Amino acid sequence: MSEIKSKYEIFKQKAHIIIYGTNTVAGRLFDLILLGLILLSVVLVMLETVKGFDAKYHAYLVFFEWVITVFFTLEYILRIITIKKPINYVLSFYGIIDLIAILPMYLSFFITGTSVFAVIRALRLLRLFKILNHPQFNNQSTHLKESLIASRGKILIFMYFMLISTIIIGSVMYVVEGEASGFTSIPMGIYWAIVTLTTVGYGDISPVTPLGQFLASFVMIMGYGIIAVPTGIVSAEFAKNKPTVKESETKVCQNCGSHEHYVNAKFCQDCGHEL
Amino acid sequence: MSEIKSKYEIFKQKAHIIIYGTNTVAGRLFDLILLGLILLSVVLVMLETVKGFDAKYHAYLVFFEWVITVFFTLEYILRIITIKKPINYVLSFYGIIDLIAILPMYLSFFITGTSVFAVIRALRLLRLFKILNHPQFNNQSTHLKESLIASRGKILIFMYFMLISTIIIGSVMYVVEGEASGFTSIPMGIYWAIVTLTTVGYGDISPVTPLGQFLASFVMIMGYGIIAVPTGIVSAEFAKNKPTVKESETKVCQNCGSHEHYVNAKFCQDCGHEL
Amino acid sequence: MSEIKSKYEIFKQKAHIIIYGTNTVAGRLFDLILLGLILLSVVLVMLETVKGFDAKYHAYLVFFEWVITVFFTLEYILRIITIKKPINYVLSFYGIIDLIAILPMYLSFFITGTSVFAVIRALRLLRLFKILNHPQFNNQSTHLKESLIASRGKILIFMYFMLISTIIIGSVMYVVEGEASGFTSIPMGIYWAIVTLTTVGYGDISPVTPLGQFLASFVMIMGYGIIAVPTGIVSAEFAKNKPTVKESETKVCQNCGSHEHYVNAKFCQDCGHEL
Amino acid sequence: MSEIKSKYEIFKQKAHIIIYGTNTVAGRLFDLILLGLILLSVVLVMLETVKGFDAKYHAYLVFFEWVITVFFTLEYILRIITIKKPINYVLSFYGIIDLIAILPMYLSFFITGTSVFAVIRALRLLRLFKILNHPQFNNQSTHLKESLIASRGKILIFMYFMLISTIIIGSVMYVVEGEASGFTSIPMGIYWAIVTLTTVGYGDISPVTPLGQFLASFVMIMGYGIIAVPTGIVSAEFAKNKPTVKESETKVCQNCGSHEHYVNAKFCQDCGHEL
Repeated sequence: MSEIKSKYEIFKQKAHIIIYGTNTVAGRLFDLILLGLILLSVVLVMLETVKGFDAKYHAYLVFFEWVITVFFTLEYILRIITIKKPINYVLSFYGIIDLIAILPMYLSFFITGTSVFAVIRALRLLRLFKILNHPQFNNQSTHLKESLIASRGKILIFMYFMLISTIIIGSVMYVVEGEASGFTSIPMGIYWAIVTLTTVGYGDISPVTPLGQFLASFVMIMGYGIIAVPTGIVSAEFAKNKPTVKESETKVCQNCGSHEHYVNAKFCQDCGHEL
Repeated sequence: MSEIKSKYEIFKQKAHIIIYGTNTVAGRLFDLILLGLILLSVVLVMLETVKGFDAKYHAYLVFFEWVITVFFTLEYILRIITIKKPINYVLSFYGIIDLIAILPMYLSFFITGTSVFAVIRALRLLRLFKILNHPQFNNQSTHLKESLIASRGKILIFMYFMLISTIIIGSVMYVVEGEASGFTSIPMGIYWAIVTLTTVGYGDISPVTPLGQFLASFVMIMGYGIIAVPTGIVSAEFAKNKPTVKESETKVCQNCGSHEHYVNAKFCQDCGHEL
Repeated sequence: MSEIKSKYEIFKQKAHIIIYGTNTVAGRLFDLILLGLILLSVVLVMLETVKGFDAKYHAYLVFFEWVITVFFTLEYILRIITIKKPINYVLSFYGIIDLIAILPMYLSFFITGTSVFAVIRALRLLRLFKILNHPQFNNQSTHLKESLIASRGKILIFMYFMLISTIIIGSVMYVVEGEASGFTSIPMGIYWAIVTLTTVGYGDISPVTPLGQFLASFVMIMGYGIIAVPTGIVSAEFAKNKPTVKESETKVCQNCGSHEHYVNAKFCQDCGHEL
Repeated sequence: MSEIKSKYEIFKQKAHIIIYGTNTVAGRLFDLILLGLILLSVVLVMLETVKGFDAKYHAYLVFFEWVITVFFTLEYILRIITIKKPINYVLSFYGIIDLIAILPMYLSFFITGTSVFAVIRALRLLRLFKILNHPQFNNQSTHLKESLIASRGKILIFMYFMLISTIIIGSVMYVVEGEASGFTSIPMGIYWAIVTLTTVGYGDISPVTPLGQFLASFVMIMGYGIIAVPTGIVSAEFAKNKPTVKESETKVCQNCGSHEHYVNAKFCQDCGHEL
């Protein structure tokens, strides 16, 4: 009896290493298979919405959906029983996502599926963000995040300025162009202002009066020019905010302590000491 | 009598601190409520232009418009009586905006409202710029402004070059494509050139002749390439023009005086002295 | 007799200073009036192509055209007689442009005007480039030019890569989408590839088959991503290529010779010496 | 007999220098002619797909195709016989491309040509990449490649983030807009998300419901804003990753060893020593 319990304990330990760990070969393989299944499940959800494809292969799609759901269910149960404090996992961001990923299929027994279910199933994709926790990705994304956080203040002001600009431009164009040109309301004008300022330019609404086109020209040039502002902010931040982790890829001078030397550099850029 | 006057003086002082100041809790709360009401008033103006919504809820929209107008009027009066030199406020940029924000509703008694009124009411939005004077925003926006002012000269030359380019391109396309393709005049050709150079590309006018499409390809590549110029100018300026205020977020070397050290840095990048 | 000649010589000298110089008040005023007239003449050419406007005000447009042409002719003659070696001016870039600016109107006596004339008249606009020779513009544009010339090599490789990419993409899309979707030939496919890669996106031709849309997605992401390359090249060049002329706007340390200090800096960033 | 063989050997040596080398005048001339013929052959393939042109000049196009094919065949044979280990060339990337460039024409004897052949013939264009191996191009492209490789990690994370974003946005818009607006399936929604995020904006599919337009506005602003991320990454990399080859274009301080001085600089930026 105690032996069985002990065997179960050993199984739990091993499973924990495979499921939660990334250092063993089995752990990495598990992560890889899981990643593949998540991608597959997302592709399945997509294909179900393609009418022609779904009509032909509906049975196959449903079959694979169930295979994946069963696998995900097993994984979810294993994650719960192999962790010390299951509640921490269940209530964590990824715990909730993992549950959302399997629930819709079981609910489809009771409720006839609508397209909303397709989207909820697509939430599985959020599990892909997990990969960003892997050590090799971590350094890079940390640097990215730090730079973006550091430029947060300036970007907020820029966004605030953009918001006010689009409201004013949208209001003016509503009056200038009027409903005949598709500017049916101020919110529609603001929508047009955003489409134009961001240089997307669908062409579903475009000015037709000479004055409207004249004003639109200024809006376009403004949109073309001010893209320099967020780009400049982030560029400057990336250039300044040096990565502290990638030390191994750059050389540090033993003499003067200056770092960030080009990897092929032979002498210190600041004191001339041999690297 | 004097006591009443004195009480009035105390009220004026307190009101002044709440309305003009941002250091007390009441002052911040006042600013926050005001901000909310300005946003609400802008949303009301927008919704009035949405035909379907206005038809259903016109009475509610007018009611809220009046509530806000009365509040803004009270605020305007308070701002005038609690300041020492009212004329300075009345003739200031925000003083005029504050007046414009309340006038249209009262004028609507005498003149039947047109859509122009909606736009004038939208000018209330300019009051939102006030937030940029708050200390926490000020540092960031000062740096942004300084960088943009420093790159003013280069950007002006760039704009001048763009202007001449669009006129020449527009004229050439007018001759090459002609009126059948929608290039009905040189100004229309210039409008097309701006739509294309800025990479907006509505598609309301697009070249149809092989020669026109060939020339348009060069214009597109030109527009795609020269966006690098304003972006490069502003990026370089942001990188160079170091913020002098955010000292607290970076470390300064006590030994050599060089600043802008990364917040995790332990030794000076220039002299190796411990930070 | 000699007195008349001498007076003529003095007039020539004075006229030379006014027409070619920019240092005297009269010289600057002359440049300003000339600039205004060039702009006016360009506006006239534009308005002539706007059918509705031309129909109403044709007589006025022709009248103003002649006034400007006479003024430009006088200026052209003065430029020739007040310079020592007239042939140098006549054969120079601006000399030819100045001639082209006045010829069309005189030729319109003999040949009935076509829209080609309008464009030739628009060449007057090239005279606007003259302003770039003014000292205040010169410093800035020199820096711009130097940076662009320095990054010439990288930009050429980038353009070469873009050219090959668009030909390959255009050929593939021609086969994948076929003529039914508007991809009527490989050159048309290349035109589409340029419209897409540069993120212009007219929408006059767009993929309709699932495979075509799948491939187009990659082309779009590629176009969105590689804009970083020219922008990065030019940004880095702007940041590196410090302006040598704007010394007056930055502070130079008297102790260590390092320059490019922020204009408000009080101590040297490199040695701590008071600026 | 041996004399003939020796003469053949000398011919092989000379041919090798002309075909593979770039140091002699003849070698450069050969490269230039080859480049011209490759460009010509690509233009021929393009023109054949332009219906109107092909109908008129089909005979000429075929004639020139054969002239170029014969020349390319001769070049291919010469490349094989003048190299020591022909197998290395035949199996190399450019060896395969060179074969693909001549095969389609000979195959057209047996198989009646389809448009697929046109594309295979277009593969000749890949030969144009050869020019990137020329020494003058090499330095620049090396620097470009190094910078892009160094920023690979960050760009991959960015792409991964973009991929997930487009799938989520596409799924949500599919539900919000529905099939009536052209969002016929989730993959179609993803296609729209890419068209919008990259600011291409064809306008073949665009949101029509107020909620859809409201969400689309956020997607556009997101696409407009996040272009700063790849641009910032690459800019920072270009600025950091200094070219090690272009030393001749910058000045190096003889005293302190710091380089990258502006070409007109007279004193060292770091120690003040005369350059």
